[in-house]
Amino acid sequence: MSSSFGKNFKIMTFGESHGEAVGAVIDGVVPGIKISKEDIQKELDKRKPGQSKITTLRKEKDEVHILSGIFEGKTTGHPICLVVYNKNQDSSAYDNLKDIFRPGHADFTYLKKYGIRDYRGGGRSSGRETVGRVAAGAVAKRMLGGIKIIAYTKEVAGTIAKTVDLTEIEKNPVRCPDKEAAKEIEKKILKARKEGDSLGGIIEVIVKNCPSGLGEPVFDKLDADIAKAVMSIGAVKGIEFGAGFSIKNLKGSSDNDEFYLDKNSGKVRQKTNKSGGILGGISSGEDILFRVAVKPTASIAKDQFTVDTKGKRKKISIKGRHDPCLCPRIIPVVENMVAIVLADAIMQQERIKGNKK
Amino acid sequence: MSSSFGKNFKIMTFGESHGEAVGAVIDGVVPGIKISKEDIQKELDKRKPGQSKITTLRKEKDEVHILSGIFEGKTTGHPICLVVYNKNQDSSAYDNLKDIFRPGHADFTYLKKYGIRDYRGGGRSSGRETVGRVAAGAVAKRMLGGIKIIAYTKEVAGTIAKTVDLTEIEKNPVRCPDKEAAKEIEKKILKARKEGDSLGGIIEVIVKNCPSGLGEPVFDKLDADIAKAVMSIGAVKGIEFGAGFSIKNLKGSSDNDEFYLDKNSGKVRQKTNKSGGILGGISSGEDILFRVAVKPTASIAKDQFTVDTKGKRKKISIKGRHDPCLCPRIIPVVENMVAIVLADAIMQQERIKGNKK
Amino acid sequence: MSSSFGKNFKIMTFGESHGEAVGAVIDGVVPGIKISKEDIQKELDKRKPGQSKITTLRKEKDEVHILSGIFEGKTTGHPICLVVYNKNQDSSAYDNLKDIFRPGHADFTYLKKYGIRDYRGGGRSSGRETVGRVAAGAVAKRMLGGIKIIAYTKEVAGTIAKTVDLTEIEKNPVRCPDKEAAKEIEKKILKARKEGDSLGGIIEVIVKNCPSGLGEPVFDKLDADIAKAVMSIGAVKGIEFGAGFSIKNLKGSSDNDEFYLDKNSGKVRQKTNKSGGILGGISSGEDILFRVAVKPTASIAKDQFTVDTKGKRKKISIKGRHDPCLCPRIIPVVENMVAIVLADAIMQQERIKGNKK
Amino acid sequence: MSSSFGKNFKIMTFGESHGEAVGAVIDGVVPGIKISKEDIQKELDKRKPGQSKITTLRKEKDEVHILSGIFEGKTTGHPICLVVYNKNQDSSAYDNLKDIFRPGHADFTYLKKYGIRDYRGGGRSSGRETVGRVAAGAVAKRMLGGIKIIAYTKEVAGTIAKTVDLTEIEKNPVRCPDKEAAKEIEKKILKARKEGDSLGGIIEVIVKNCPSGLGEPVFDKLDADIAKAVMSIGAVKGIEFGAGFSIKNLKGSSDNDEFYLDKNSGKVRQKTNKSGGILGGISSGEDILFRVAVKPTASIAKDQFTVDTKGKRKKISIKGRHDPCLCPRIIPVVENMVAIVLADAIMQQERIKGNKK
Repeated sequence: MSSSFGKNFKIMTFGESHGEAVGAVIDGVVPGIKISKEDIQKELDKRKPGQSKITTLRKEKDEVHILSGIFEGKTTGHPICLVVYNKNQDSSAYDNLKDIFRPGHADFTYLKKYGIRDYRGGGRSSGRETVGRVAAGAVAKRMLGGIKIIAYTKEVAGTIAKTVDLTEIEKNPVRCPDKEAAKEIEKKILKARKEGDSLGGIIEVIVKNCPSGLGEPVFDKLDADIAKAVMSIGAVKGIEFGAGFSIKNLKGSSDNDEFYLDKNSGKVRQKTNKSGGILGGISSGEDILFRVAVKPTASIAKDQFTVDTKGKRKKISIKGRHDPCLCPRIIPVVENMVAIVLADAIMQQERIKGNKK
Repeated sequence: MSSSFGKNFKIMTFGESHGEAVGAVIDGVVPGIKISKEDIQKELDKRKPGQSKITTLRKEKDEVHILSGIFEGKTTGHPICLVVYNKNQDSSAYDNLKDIFRPGHADFTYLKKYGIRDYRGGGRSSGRETVGRVAAGAVAKRMLGGIKIIAYTKEVAGTIAKTVDLTEIEKNPVRCPDKEAAKEIEKKILKARKEGDSLGGIIEVIVKNCPSGLGEPVFDKLDADIAKAVMSIGAVKGIEFGAGFSIKNLKGSSDNDEFYLDKNSGKVRQKTNKSGGILGGISSGEDILFRVAVKPTASIAKDQFTVDTKGKRKKISIKGRHDPCLCPRIIPVVENMVAIVLADAIMQQERIKGNKK
Repeated sequence: MSSSFGKNFKIMTFGESHGEAVGAVIDGVVPGIKISKEDIQKELDKRKPGQSKITTLRKEKDEVHILSGIFEGKTTGHPICLVVYNKNQDSSAYDNLKDIFRPGHADFTYLKKYGIRDYRGGGRSSGRETVGRVAAGAVAKRMLGGIKIIAYTKEVAGTIAKTVDLTEIEKNPVRCPDKEAAKEIEKKILKARKEGDSLGGIIEVIVKNCPSGLGEPVFDKLDADIAKAVMSIGAVKGIEFGAGFSIKNLKGSSDNDEFYLDKNSGKVRQKTNKSGGILGGISSGEDILFRVAVKPTASIAKDQFTVDTKGKRKKISIKGRHDPCLCPRIIPVVENMVAIVLADAIMQQERIKGNKK
Repeated sequence: MSSSFGKNFKIMTFGESHGEAVGAVIDGVVPGIKISKEDIQKELDKRKPGQSKITTLRKEKDEVHILSGIFEGKTTGHPICLVVYNKNQDSSAYDNLKDIFRPGHADFTYLKKYGIRDYRGGGRSSGRETVGRVAAGAVAKRMLGGIKIIAYTKEVAGTIAKTVDLTEIEKNPVRCPDKEAAKEIEKKILKARKEGDSLGGIIEVIVKNCPSGLGEPVFDKLDADIAKAVMSIGAVKGIEFGAGFSIKNLKGSSDNDEFYLDKNSGKVRQKTNKSGGILGGISSGEDILFRVAVKPTASIAKDQFTVDTKGKRKKISIKGRHDPCLCPRIIPVVENMVAIVLADAIMQQERIKGNKK
């Protein structure tokens, strides 16, 4: 019941998988920012289904329509409504699932919560909901100046990216920065699909050129806000910053990042980055680093047992064209959610700067 | 700059480590709830310094004062202001640190953000800030009915709790549910202190008797809100629900929790709990399960190198009485933050129930 | 820059006068509420231009499209996106006004604030913005149970409705509850139009069957929230509840409403209603009563002097089809804004009731 | 249940009339602003009881205590907690009123809403609640630069201030800018008190030097936000801006303010100010002008009839020391609420300016 996000850069997303449309309204965009339909379409294209042989084979064009808030190529400071109309949704495939609780899905909890459920394609609980996030994020990115947000597949089914070549990411369908690892993961994903199964994985995110000073202690810390933004994406089950869970084996003396004066930039920097670019909830100017745990796609063709709404046991096999591994397509969603958090944090910090005189 | 948290059960915390007081105001408490000063004091006592030989040796009574919102032992529906006055704070110890960026601390980022910094004991970035969270959480707990939130130290420096005996937790200073592991961890903590160092660890949290239906997709999902609440606590660097990061090695067929009808309760249940009690961002009725990564205390007596505000290199050794491992004292903070999230989610869901007729 | 309204029943409206569309997204609608496209269209029809000879003669069908949140005729608990596409907007009429500050309009302040301005038809500052409010209000009305909100033209240009016959309101184009006054006002409006001028007036609002207990002291008092909702409508310059500004001549002994026990209903009632149905910011169960001051339409054909963006003096005459008196068409906007405030307050109060056990 | 106000400059007030304390926490104050205890005390002194022979004769010192957020005389960017402890509250006077619904008071509605009521001195519904508003407003005022907010008694019981000499306001206990009117009003107030009665009145407010560009259409318009802020003060029953309710008799040609270029300042100005300094919800740079209707004090010594909680008829006479006319003491409350709204709006607008590059 809360499809609203952000304090300054506020978005409200809407839309069900098999409804009329999905999209977002953004309230709080600063006026005078240049933005084109292409800027938004580019992000949606990174997310759209049917991009490669390892994603769902469904083809959807996902064309964005700008209904408001942009005038002569610039933001006006008024709400920007972005809509992607759903096309050719075939809901009949869901008729036989309408009274069944699919394992790993939100069917059961949605019915418990709302007492009513749009079962067609998962309704609002579908990954299709993220179209609104990505469209809004595309606008947020225009407010980030030189900040770059880069996400990639770090690990799937035991195969880990050992090198990080950022130029490699968009060259393979896995979105993995290690060419060799990418090939291996691709094979594993195709094999899982053939077996009617799916794979989980780890996404890693780097934010470069982030200025120091973003984040609002004590509750709206930058890492807390990023955690919420990313954990709110379906299929995400964990997040860790910098050294993350491995700090259980570190000591203060090995975990603390030493400060030094960088002669070139004249800036205070840190020799290591175990903190992941955030200290006390505020960006330090070092790269922001975090990793995200992505669960295997819940929709699988393999036989599973479950119950229906009357509690009767059922054997099901979920047909349809589902992504056998969510990592490649969640990557643009993560990037754009981080963009929204950063745009919000920047606006918040500008407020201080403006007044600090 | 944001010390506000919650949508229905709204809190605003305040106070610096060496200022006049720390505390919280809660706006949105339902009227007519029985609550006593002791209910709040009990939670603060679990958090207070000087509880055992493995925590800081500083002694603070941390007595709560209720300034408003309670009348004849019941909440009135109006803001509850809870204050703990700071006593005997000795700020002189911080005079020599006033221009120094302590590694692992927020000194540098606070100065970058605010341009001004209360250096005495870390000011607002101190762990002392959590007094307000715990006091507010104590009120939240009174709104949770039969829900129980239990947190404990799961792992420190390679020692893992192998058994989980909930009755054991409060019997050892580590707050570990495995007696033997507790002893080993205690030794390791004492050794670290002797060496002028500190240890990180993992806290595990179980929420029992949580009704299904809590959490507000698509952004205010229960796991997203818990993630934000917990990640906003100083020293927390990661969170994972259910199978967490280990899902990178799972397949859909092994990760999906099978639904079945429990004959005894007549309820639909899940045979496993890899999802950690939350599906699609909504509680399923199974135990909520998550783990939290806690970094080693940044304040250590061992020599460290850093710079001062002018960029000059400095060698420092942080004296004072600091917790050599934060896990035992962060536990009540985590529990109470979760209580606040749940109280908020319950109020939100009541709203639906009330109107669903 | 804030097109968001409401805490529980949250709306975000969007759209410019001559852009692609106007509309609203509503986040927070309780699931399971029956609603049809006709329910919404009916409200929009009350607001649409070209209804009668005393409103603007522009004809717009203003057909609503429901893009999300309704499934099989019921709300799902997810955001409802309502869109009205703009048709046949002729922006060329505004080309000669693009650099001119129209007196009584927001041209000057919008440019000062945003540094950019969609001058076509006033852009976001146009009364057309209220389409989103009315569409959202139509949904809110479905959550009000037996509550009735009735607004009508009370006074225009010295002619006052002396009788209040609620059945009369929709029978005349002035929406006046006094047949004779309606005729006189109609004549005055037509005369003003002929003279290239416009008229101000007073709208009166009665809310019947409002339960006691709505409103949230100390800031979100029901009268304060209604005041904000109504004052945010363009052209509204004042609001007064109950005895209103006439209390300047009252004494405590004449202003206080006496409580008595109503034998029929068994309820505590008030003999008079000088308080306008709200005591201490909370509805008392008596009719809520308030009056709204509506300024004369700023767009007039009569010659006026002003300056352009370079400060050069200009004589202008605003052509186009404008309402010569805004009262009749603001009435549905006021009603629906009050509906939104009440739906929000009801949800808030349900939260208390649900938890009060 | 909502004692929270503001989006950027956020306050949470707390406290009951006869509880431990009243006060406010402010979250969102920009760091680095110079502020002293005296700055806050000065505002509280303007509000405190017992100032003159025409206010309540109760004497309360109302000394403010700053618990947090200020370091070395400057704001730190962290929450400022301001507390005024209640002294010598004699609650016994209220024992006989504990089951009685005082006419014109919130006793009845509070009980209906909350099911529980702190009857001592009105509890949270008491005017004493405004101490928190005034203390917070004193901080807000430090963020307003050259803006001046001036409120005064315009009219009481038929006597109207005919001249407006701002230097006169603080020279008479009525806070009236017309010396002669002040004397007459003072006499009328004293006479009303002698008769066991009370008087209503009108307060007028001028905001000078307000920059253009403040206010956030379409909902958070500056006049809408001021209306909410002021209408949320107890006893306020109406508000009107500029020409206000008198526009019912104006035409577009007489209401529209003509723009011209002021040669001296080089600024675009308006020849008249019927709009009250706000156009389209945004400040225009002209003085902001509004008037507020204040009801007669509900607590009067004269006999009144009412019922108790069981519906039994009762005759009551409210003893105690109450203000016979609320205008003089509401003036600082209005001023400080406006200061809070303006500080919030300025922060919001800075956000745009900061990003507009």
